[in-house]
Amino acid sequence: MRIYGDLTSGNCLKIKIVADRLGLAYEWVPVDAVKGESRTPAYLALFPAGQIPGVAFADGRRLAQSNAIIRYLARGSALLPDDAFAAATVDQWLFWEQYSHEPAVAVCRAEMKFRGVRREARDPARVARGEAALDLMERHLAGTGWFVGDDATIADVALFAYTQWADEGGFDLAARPAIRDWLDRCKVAFRIEPDAIATAAGR
Amino acid sequence: MRIYGDLTSGNCLKIKIVADRLGLAYEWVPVDAVKGESRTPAYLALFPAGQIPGVAFADGRRLAQSNAIIRYLARGSALLPDDAFAAATVDQWLFWEQYSHEPAVAVCRAEMKFRGVRREARDPARVARGEAALDLMERHLAGTGWFVGDDATIADVALFAYTQWADEGGFDLAARPAIRDWLDRCKVAFRIEPDAIATAAGR
Repeated sequence: MRIYGDLTSGNCLKIKIVADRLGLAYEWVPVDAVKGESRTPAYLALFPAGQIPGVAFADGRRLAQSNAIIRYLARGSALLPDDAFAAATVDQWLFWEQYSHEPAVAVCRAEMKFRGVRREARDPARVARGEAALDLMERHLAGTGWFVGDDATIADVALFAYTQWADEGGFDLAARPAIRDWLDRCKVAFRIEPDAIATAAGR
Repeated sequence: MRIYGDLTSGNCLKIKIVADRLGLAYEWVPVDAVKGESRTPAYLALFPAGQIPGVAFADGRRLAQSNAIIRYLARGSALLPDDAFAAATVDQWLFWEQYSHEPAVAVCRAEMKFRGVRREARDPARVARGEAALDLMERHLAGTGWFVGDDATIADVALFAYTQWADEGGFDLAARPAIRDWLDRCKVAFRIEPDAIATAAGR
């Protein structure tokens, strides 16, 4: 399959983590959304919503939306529970991530990292939503090792992607030890190379 | 099961539509988020993210996030395709709805309907995102009857919920005939009583 995306995007990184963890073969097609490359006519013809990541399979079928993609790739693997209710609980976190976490934590990071916004100039309402999202994660993780069940799932992949970069959006994990410990567990579970992350994040 | 929510919320209405369509028994527990009833200690003890809708099953298990709930309730029914890729395409639209449609179309409606914001005073960036979301729906529906496959799925339920009320958020469907026709098809497929909708939306 072809993965269209940019490794400085947590949403795109989710696909790489799952594909690598499951040993899926892929070609990475670089698409720089910051430069507008996800809004070109050629890209929109493939993925009409104009967002990264997108995935194209060998038979021409295409799929967009990071969490829909990782859910599809992970089916039948340990990253997605067989039990229907456990899988629904994974879905609950996937939707929460896209509605209540990413639009705050990732958008603050994008503003600071790619648009030169200073920490003090971030939108206060967005900052409050990000702090609340991280607080909810901290409370949840204080009592458990993973978001759903006893092992890593795509719920952890989805929430790992931007939480690992929370500091780049001006969020402080110092007083959130459960999140820090969970991030370390994720890096082991997903076999994340520290250098690879630094390289991806460092452009 | 118990459904916690408010029928003026499209996210809550999704659960009612799916439960009614599938003939599932439920008790509706009114929770008025506008009055803060989703942020009380009692509600947060049930649903830590403090959002409506939430669903509690007879055995005590609970699930939040509207699209995770309808996906769980619809499993094994005609509202969720058996084919894995078709189901993934449903997921794609569910995530798109929560990321690119609801935060624009539903939030504009909430501001105008519940907070007294005038149409001209809406946030221009949010309005632009809403118009773009409706344009994408119009283009998609111009070539097909339903969002995925040949029949109504939970992707249609999810997108119907707030699109039917787009005008309450200051969005005009007059130049979007494919959306209007699809809304009519949804009302038949989901057996929506015009009076019920008017009553729910009219408080």
